[in-house]
Amino acid sequence: MRRGAVYHGCLMAAAPKPIPPNQQQALVDRLIETCGGAYSPLTRRKYFISGPQWAAAYEGQALFHAPTRQPVNFEEVIRQYGRIGIGHWCTHDTDVIPTEALGKEEQARIVERIKNSLRENGLECSMVTRPRRSPVPVRCCCERCTFPSTRTCEADIEIAKQHGRPTLKHCLEAKPFEPQAEILLPTSDSMLAFIASGLLKHPEMVGLNPEYLHELMWGGAPRAALARALLAGKLFHFDINDGYRLKHDVDIGVGLVNPLDWLNVLVLLRSHDYNGPFNLDFKPPRTTSNHGVFAVSFPTAVDRFITLWEMAGDVVSDPVIKEATGALKSGGGPVDAHDAQAVAAANRELLTLHELIAHRIFQILIGAHRGRTYSL
Amino acid sequence: MRRGAVYHGCLMAAAPKPIPPNQQQALVDRLIETCGGAYSPLTRRKYFISGPQWAAAYEGQALFHAPTRQPVNFEEVIRQYGRIGIGHWCTHDTDVIPTEALGKEEQARIVERIKNSLRENGLECSMVTRPRRSPVPVRCCCERCTFPSTRTCEADIEIAKQHGRPTLKHCLEAKPFEPQAEILLPTSDSMLAFIASGLLKHPEMVGLNPEYLHELMWGGAPRAALARALLAGKLFHFDINDGYRLKHDVDIGVGLVNPLDWLNVLVLLRSHDYNGPFNLDFKPPRTTSNHGVFAVSFPTAVDRFITLWEMAGDVVSDPVIKEATGALKSGGGPVDAHDAQAVAAANRELLTLHELIAHRIFQILIGAHRGRTYSL
Amino acid sequence: MRRGAVYHGCLMAAAPKPIPPNQQQALVDRLIETCGGAYSPLTRRKYFISGPQWAAAYEGQALFHAPTRQPVNFEEVIRQYGRIGIGHWCTHDTDVIPTEALGKEEQARIVERIKNSLRENGLECSMVTRPRRSPVPVRCCCERCTFPSTRTCEADIEIAKQHGRPTLKHCLEAKPFEPQAEILLPTSDSMLAFIASGLLKHPEMVGLNPEYLHELMWGGAPRAALARALLAGKLFHFDINDGYRLKHDVDIGVGLVNPLDWLNVLVLLRSHDYNGPFNLDFKPPRTTSNHGVFAVSFPTAVDRFITLWEMAGDVVSDPVIKEATGALKSGGGPVDAHDAQAVAAANRELLTLHELIAHRIFQILIGAHRGRTYSL
Amino acid sequence: MRRGAVYHGCLMAAAPKPIPPNQQQALVDRLIETCGGAYSPLTRRKYFISGPQWAAAYEGQALFHAPTRQPVNFEEVIRQYGRIGIGHWCTHDTDVIPTEALGKEEQARIVERIKNSLRENGLECSMVTRPRRSPVPVRCCCERCTFPSTRTCEADIEIAKQHGRPTLKHCLEAKPFEPQAEILLPTSDSMLAFIASGLLKHPEMVGLNPEYLHELMWGGAPRAALARALLAGKLFHFDINDGYRLKHDVDIGVGLVNPLDWLNVLVLLRSHDYNGPFNLDFKPPRTTSNHGVFAVSFPTAVDRFITLWEMAGDVVSDPVIKEATGALKSGGGPVDAHDAQAVAAANRELLTLHELIAHRIFQILIGAHRGRTYSL
Repeated sequence: MRRGAVYHGCLMAAAPKPIPPNQQQALVDRLIETCGGAYSPLTRRKYFISGPQWAAAYEGQALFHAPTRQPVNFEEVIRQYGRIGIGHWCTHDTDVIPTEALGKEEQARIVERIKNSLRENGLECSMVTRPRRSPVPVRCCCERCTFPSTRTCEADIEIAKQHGRPTLKHCLEAKPFEPQAEILLPTSDSMLAFIASGLLKHPEMVGLNPEYLHELMWGGAPRAALARALLAGKLFHFDINDGYRLKHDVDIGVGLVNPLDWLNVLVLLRSHDYNGPFNLDFKPPRTTSNHGVFAVSFPTAVDRFITLWEMAGDVVSDPVIKEATGALKSGGGPVDAHDAQAVAAANRELLTLHELIAHRIFQILIGAHRGRTYSL
Repeated sequence: MRRGAVYHGCLMAAAPKPIPPNQQQALVDRLIETCGGAYSPLTRRKYFISGPQWAAAYEGQALFHAPTRQPVNFEEVIRQYGRIGIGHWCTHDTDVIPTEALGKEEQARIVERIKNSLRENGLECSMVTRPRRSPVPVRCCCERCTFPSTRTCEADIEIAKQHGRPTLKHCLEAKPFEPQAEILLPTSDSMLAFIASGLLKHPEMVGLNPEYLHELMWGGAPRAALARALLAGKLFHFDINDGYRLKHDVDIGVGLVNPLDWLNVLVLLRSHDYNGPFNLDFKPPRTTSNHGVFAVSFPTAVDRFITLWEMAGDVVSDPVIKEATGALKSGGGPVDAHDAQAVAAANRELLTLHELIAHRIFQILIGAHRGRTYSL
Repeated sequence: MRRGAVYHGCLMAAAPKPIPPNQQQALVDRLIETCGGAYSPLTRRKYFISGPQWAAAYEGQALFHAPTRQPVNFEEVIRQYGRIGIGHWCTHDTDVIPTEALGKEEQARIVERIKNSLRENGLECSMVTRPRRSPVPVRCCCERCTFPSTRTCEADIEIAKQHGRPTLKHCLEAKPFEPQAEILLPTSDSMLAFIASGLLKHPEMVGLNPEYLHELMWGGAPRAALARALLAGKLFHFDINDGYRLKHDVDIGVGLVNPLDWLNVLVLLRSHDYNGPFNLDFKPPRTTSNHGVFAVSFPTAVDRFITLWEMAGDVVSDPVIKEATGALKSGGGPVDAHDAQAVAAANRELLTLHELIAHRIFQILIGAHRGRTYSL
Repeated sequence: MRRGAVYHGCLMAAAPKPIPPNQQQALVDRLIETCGGAYSPLTRRKYFISGPQWAAAYEGQALFHAPTRQPVNFEEVIRQYGRIGIGHWCTHDTDVIPTEALGKEEQARIVERIKNSLRENGLECSMVTRPRRSPVPVRCCCERCTFPSTRTCEADIEIAKQHGRPTLKHCLEAKPFEPQAEILLPTSDSMLAFIASGLLKHPEMVGLNPEYLHELMWGGAPRAALARALLAGKLFHFDINDGYRLKHDVDIGVGLVNPLDWLNVLVLLRSHDYNGPFNLDFKPPRTTSNHGVFAVSFPTAVDRFITLWEMAGDVVSDPVIKEATGALKSGGGPVDAHDAQAVAAANRELLTLHELIAHRIFQILIGAHRGRTYSL
């Protein structure tokens, strides 16, 4: 080992000449073209994928770090989403409406502009969210939680009646570390229990918007959390991204950290007919430029999602997995279910299939089920 | 969503008839054959892979859970490793020598049997380790740490002199949670600092044996920990397995949980010429049978490792990654290094390549660089 | 700083002469007497504290480590609990009945012996639990979870009818890492949601037995988890111990790691009238001898609990905390609740009381509210 | 249990009348006076405590949350620190010098104002730090780490020569999650190993500035990390605060979360003669007002530190702990150190003292060693 010569994360290569700034975008465009594997905008629009205003407009600021990108308005975001093939757009109200214009006439004018933009680019608005603007807490916790939820549902019922439209789906999103780690409703599970607690007036209108990374940040297994939400019939919306378990809220693009876990998540959702939105709630990294956001970040995130979703289809229809899971379900023969030793003996060799299935899913991830191998 | 109809982790399939116990091994063998992708024993032996006695002989016991497999002696383990193509074997002394026979005549007889077994099956012994047998600590910590290390080195120097052989490499292995989480040397880094502290008499003989999962269990990034060990010239041996960050010591087979992170680890090791052993320090799951241990667990673990190692070669030689990393190294032009704004402007578009590289590595993992895609 | 002279966790003292084994128990007894602060057995019995058979009989074995203590039978455990003043006893069925005797005539004989022991020592049995003995899972998860729970409830209803007694409380206890970290019902919250999911036939009979450390191991805030269980009316039983967040299941005695968090937990339980059992579900450390288990481990654990419980009473009745929480509840004056800025302005200075309360609880923990201070 | 009546973290009290804004500061002042236990400014100045400019001037902003406090200039911070009795002040250069004024004439004028402020209020400057202003990384990691460290040391040597003063102590501070969790030097240990790696030109000038919470956030035991830094002779500076393991960088005031762990930390530092600064690197919570920062946050943080430091003195001099640790050091008698069973037998009962010591430290924390108890 050459001591003192570790170059972590960057491979050795003869250093070429500096690349002048005005040639850099072209280089990025050429390399992303070389990568290949892009789906057409038309194909991308077949999936219920949404792009958030805040994700594309995020300027790269961080605690102790200044922004690295220029502001982008919603017309540009919607236009770019349309071009890429992201068929849905969502937003925080204050992403697009200045706080002081909320509820005023200006709001109506902005909403009109948004509608026009969406129509021109063939997008639909899939979701609007509002950050907590409630006064700083001086009352007790459960009152604070039940009150806004009930008030919002009742307002929706009223407006829906006026407009002759169905009521909306109302989602709670777990934010485990906000404000400071030790809160009353940190996880999707705590919210499921809260919805079922009897404290809400309209629990049937309220469900969950889990975020992959929020569950992981808390230390949970996202696919298990999703399974529990499905079990309760409460998986209404799903924020997709990636990151590290029990670390910060880094909001990396889907599939860039845990692609195998993502494959398992999508197998779960495909096989249980989840048909709600997949919302690209990630942050393009600070190192990506304004150009890169729409040239690299969003198209590659969409394409990794589509690839993993289709790969989940491979898993569901794979003959090895089908036969193995079938065998595990049928078991090893009729025995007295109360005689643990007899049950173990009847299934002993069959249970090896658990490990075989895990290996098979690895193979499907890397493409070995389609013959990928190395001749050595 | 069909409420109450969640089948987490197991796909729906028409339940076939029970599979009688005497047909189950054949089913497992047929399905693993169908999986394909196995390398030949000869190919497997080209890699410096070692199989531990304890891993193959582990009987599946766990806290509150009885064993699920029968005992296996070292002759059988070595024979099976030879058949599979695992060219090296390692052991704890007490895995093969009863505690009361240590240092006695019986030990010599057993060592002779081991040598014969290894010779007959074409294996070599790559490592022997001894669990802490030191008395329960009543002295202060640093004395306890320095004393055994120095004593072992000096004994080795003496024996090496007598036999005219070079001294051995002495490795410390971090076990973050043993005995109870808050210990003096929990991680590889703490051990690196300890080796360099001036307290050891022969620091040049002492290095590290990191285990992938131990670093992850502690919350670290294994590849960063390995990079630090490489930087210090102290990566002597490497235990390979998989598992979950900040959870228990589950010792899952390599690549079954974090294949992308594993790919990155192997890119680091390949590009820095690590040439020590890769030790299969995992535990076949409790659900795997004695038959399954050698029919599924070990061959698939070896093959996933080889595939990931060769895939790391794809990463190192990939033209997109080569050009992108080269461009990042050469930068965006000559600017005054003290003028942060000028430096940022000169590199702005280039830095998008970081995200592009991350996407490219995902592509190589799933085989998109060889044309894998879905037509939709 | 004297380099190389760090003695972590042990203070410097002139080394006295060795203490012969036959004088060691006397030394321990004298020092625990010197510590003082012990409550009388009569006082201890006033609290609903239970001692588990398995805790006192635990022999100190660990993964890779042999037992350090001798076996203890239930007569001895019950006798010692009686002497110390632990008024309730609980057990796993297999702690006291050999697996092969379950449901056989021998079981009745053993139960009779237990009843006699309890009567003679003035204890009552507060809880019996059975480890999972169900066959290794081959069916899908939610069936497996609902089936045993429903079956157990129905059996209880039947037996209760026969004996003219009320039905029992049935508790689920979250074990986040068993078997291997990524499970369907890892936490108390996931269980709350499961109980409310509509899948159980008798949800009103089923509640929770949270364990302090299990919540902490998972990364949660135990007092928040308990608050959620209280909110759902499902806190039936509570296992008390201590340990480290996101580390192993170390089962340390209550208050030895997180006394301030424990104080907060008990303030919550006192102020919400929890009146179920506090079960001493810890493991005397491996370094403690058989003598030490009943001379040190159990009496000191009971006494720390009682002290913290009474201290929680100090918090509840403290005039500073009463006035500060009262002021926070009343707020800073009538303002339009929709005008966030006006609300903030009206409460601005009042909110400082949050930090003041945190400091006050620290003071109560260390006894500063009773005048403890240092003159310097 | 009254279902639906959980008031987490706030105790029941009859709701008094609203407190008008202009009476709120007086209420806070009266209650903090009632709390008592404050040390005099003169006593506080006896300790090597420093207050950071950034901590007092922090305006309460957070990700997604606007500031809650007004800006405070350094004259006011220094004046308040002087009044409270915090004898040292430290700063980031850019906290007090606009980035564009760095190295310009304006810098000298500001430094002159700082000197005057410090002189007038009887403070000294204990430390100046500069945030990373290096260009966005395009070069390899280890070059980036070694280069600035070596350059800074050499500049210091040069300036020290010119001014005839000794060189400064140069500290590295681990920031485990910046920028995004998986970095090359995340912990104090990785930095210790780096300093000893041979890559630095002046390793003897470079040491550590660990922060209590940064070690905890990473999952480590802060006192073990500090012990390792002491072992290497590299504990130069210590940032004191509190927070939650493996959660965000919440920077809570010292002792408000983990007072027992803090007591243990200070026992370690007292008994190893650490004499560097204790830097109050916490953030007054967002709910605390400008008035509260100097009326509550800083004085109570200082007083908790002093109390815990003196309490650590109680631990060091406690007769029970002295005798128990002495007995553990002397052990149970002369035995053959190679005969593990004999060693265990000779020390068996003595080892119970480990648990007894843990209980004793709890007692000292709560004041039981001075007779605090509850008569029941």
